[in-house]
Amino acid sequence: MKIVIAPDSFKGSLSALKAAEAIERGVKKAAPDAQTVLVPVADGGEGTLDSLVSATNGRKVQVKVKGPLLEPVQAEYGVLGDGETCVIEMARASGLNLIEPSRLNPMITTTYGTGELITKALDDGCRKFILAIGGSATNDGGAGMLQALGMKLLDGEGQSIQGGGGALRELAKIDASDFDARIANSEFLIASDVQNPLIGKEGASYVFGPQKGATAEMVDHLDRNLKHFADLVEEQTGIRLHEMAGAGAAGGIGGAFQAFFPSKMRRGIDMVIEYTGLKEKLIGAEFVFTGEGQIDYQTASGKTPMGVAQAAKREGIPVFALAGSIGQGIDALYEHGITSVHSIINGPMQLDMAMKLGAELLEQTAEQVTRTYVSCKIES
Amino acid sequence: MKIVIAPDSFKGSLSALKAAEAIERGVKKAAPDAQTVLVPVADGGEGTLDSLVSATNGRKVQVKVKGPLLEPVQAEYGVLGDGETCVIEMARASGLNLIEPSRLNPMITTTYGTGELITKALDDGCRKFILAIGGSATNDGGAGMLQALGMKLLDGEGQSIQGGGGALRELAKIDASDFDARIANSEFLIASDVQNPLIGKEGASYVFGPQKGATAEMVDHLDRNLKHFADLVEEQTGIRLHEMAGAGAAGGIGGAFQAFFPSKMRRGIDMVIEYTGLKEKLIGAEFVFTGEGQIDYQTASGKTPMGVAQAAKREGIPVFALAGSIGQGIDALYEHGITSVHSIINGPMQLDMAMKLGAELLEQTAEQVTRTYVSCKIES
Repeated sequence: MKIVIAPDSFKGSLSALKAAEAIERGVKKAAPDAQTVLVPVADGGEGTLDSLVSATNGRKVQVKVKGPLLEPVQAEYGVLGDGETCVIEMARASGLNLIEPSRLNPMITTTYGTGELITKALDDGCRKFILAIGGSATNDGGAGMLQALGMKLLDGEGQSIQGGGGALRELAKIDASDFDARIANSEFLIASDVQNPLIGKEGASYVFGPQKGATAEMVDHLDRNLKHFADLVEEQTGIRLHEMAGAGAAGGIGGAFQAFFPSKMRRGIDMVIEYTGLKEKLIGAEFVFTGEGQIDYQTASGKTPMGVAQAAKREGIPVFALAGSIGQGIDALYEHGITSVHSIINGPMQLDMAMKLGAELLEQTAEQVTRTYVSCKIES
Repeated sequence: MKIVIAPDSFKGSLSALKAAEAIERGVKKAAPDAQTVLVPVADGGEGTLDSLVSATNGRKVQVKVKGPLLEPVQAEYGVLGDGETCVIEMARASGLNLIEPSRLNPMITTTYGTGELITKALDDGCRKFILAIGGSATNDGGAGMLQALGMKLLDGEGQSIQGGGGALRELAKIDASDFDARIANSEFLIASDVQNPLIGKEGASYVFGPQKGATAEMVDHLDRNLKHFADLVEEQTGIRLHEMAGAGAAGGIGGAFQAFFPSKMRRGIDMVIEYTGLKEKLIGAEFVFTGEGQIDYQTASGKTPMGVAQAAKREGIPVFALAGSIGQGIDALYEHGITSVHSIINGPMQLDMAMKLGAELLEQTAEQVTRTYVSCKIES
């Protein structure tokens, strides 16, 4: 009996890999002879690098880069098991998680370090890239990244503009003459679920600015500055980013990729499912475990368990979803291939205790669900 | 597909019947065509009357009696579906739950009301009795009950002694001449798991006195008084209650039954399983749901889910146990027929919230476990 274990991370408690290992321990208690296949998944945001490297037996490369506020940051990029595809998680260099909440300021945070990660990977020979762009602290339209890759972004005096969404206001000229030539010979797959345009009320600044620390006044500036940047990009390249779907992703870096890189955007979970080889791994499986911290009606809109369920449904394989917390509306999940949903909480307890006991609770619940399923097999 | 639903109560939250109905709702969501058989169970303590009446389609009779402190209490007894067996739950007349915690005092609490319940049932024609003796507030050796049934318990002046474990000290003579003659023509099945003797360190007063409000000094008095009572009973009847296993049950009422009633003692859960007809109802079942508030290693020693599991195991039927809270050591349950254990808690929450949401949580968990099991059937 082959059992596939494909959870997302349990935010604040367990990485997707640790969650998968805990589930595996539980499965083995209930079905010691089962063959278990671990496929820790992610949705294109935080955890994507680990998921893909782990699932393909790849490796990670350490790189020192400049963080969102130009402070030194120890980052990594991943090389997949194929030895040629590189995974870059933007949050590792330019992420919200790298800054003290009190220092969040998208007027000055920069994507420069993300550009440095790409440079290092190019130096190491990489020409195929997966960019996971979730969790950014930035709203600079990818300007910092472009500068790190040789794009000259100059003010009225011919000086390079500073980093951040605020300084884009000074931009007068885009000079691509020294832009890293290797990029034109590379492929960039941008993992993003965000379809927002670059500017306006549905754009990067208005929709995502506040969660990065933007006040209402900053949001207004940031939006105007991105519009200004888009005007210059259109002048320079003929490409109009203003209303382009997905250009607003990650503070507008989506637009930079669309204008200056050979790139495609894909839904995070779809990309992860393809690159982890989940579909092949599902063939012949008895059932699948998936899960994440919170499962509710929102899970139906493209969260990881849904992607796993859809892949499994095509093979007619049951999917048991494990959650820290079950919210409202899970009935909506069944038609997408989720068979049943189980909370791992095993008695009245506070959130922090639940997070601390995550691995044990996951193991116990996986064991009990497996025992339940297997009792039917025994009978038949 | 026939599914048997046999939970105990979830103390503080749901009666066994309400728990069974909640589980049924969940089962029906997952398997709308399933035939559900509800068998709310109990362990011989609180809930036994409701369980047996419900399971046998019996009825209840209202009786006003004297409570543990002689205050008026609205009580009931049950008549099983056979129309002739009566169930009397001692706690309904003489129970701990009837007294404010600050007024607990086994020196004065009396089993008089329990005797009144028996009298009423005898008056109504009952000759077969099940006595559920859990949850008592008393330590009077059943003296109050005996007095209500016509036994004269007299002091040195030939006056009836007062109620309570303290007044037993005054007992000088037991006069059975007016003891209800119908009792000798009746059968009494005493549902009790308690094997304690009447007196001594393992006896009623020392072991159970404190939880009924006895101080260390009271415990000493109560134990001496029960010894004195047992001395007189031995003189009167030749029956020696002092060390008799089970005589210490329910503050010594076990002894009164053994000395003065045609009676047998049986483990509560075994009696409930027999009288609810659970074994017959299990035949041909696909699986069984059981459960109670807390499931841990202690459940293995004769708690209701264990009795249900043992009965189901004989038929080779899986048993899924639902709990408010899963404690340590549940591995010990599997060899007794429990297939899997599931907490109904579906996210971090406090105990009082869990108790309030008990029905919803039970319904949801029952649905999910059923969905899991059924997915295996579909496949096969």
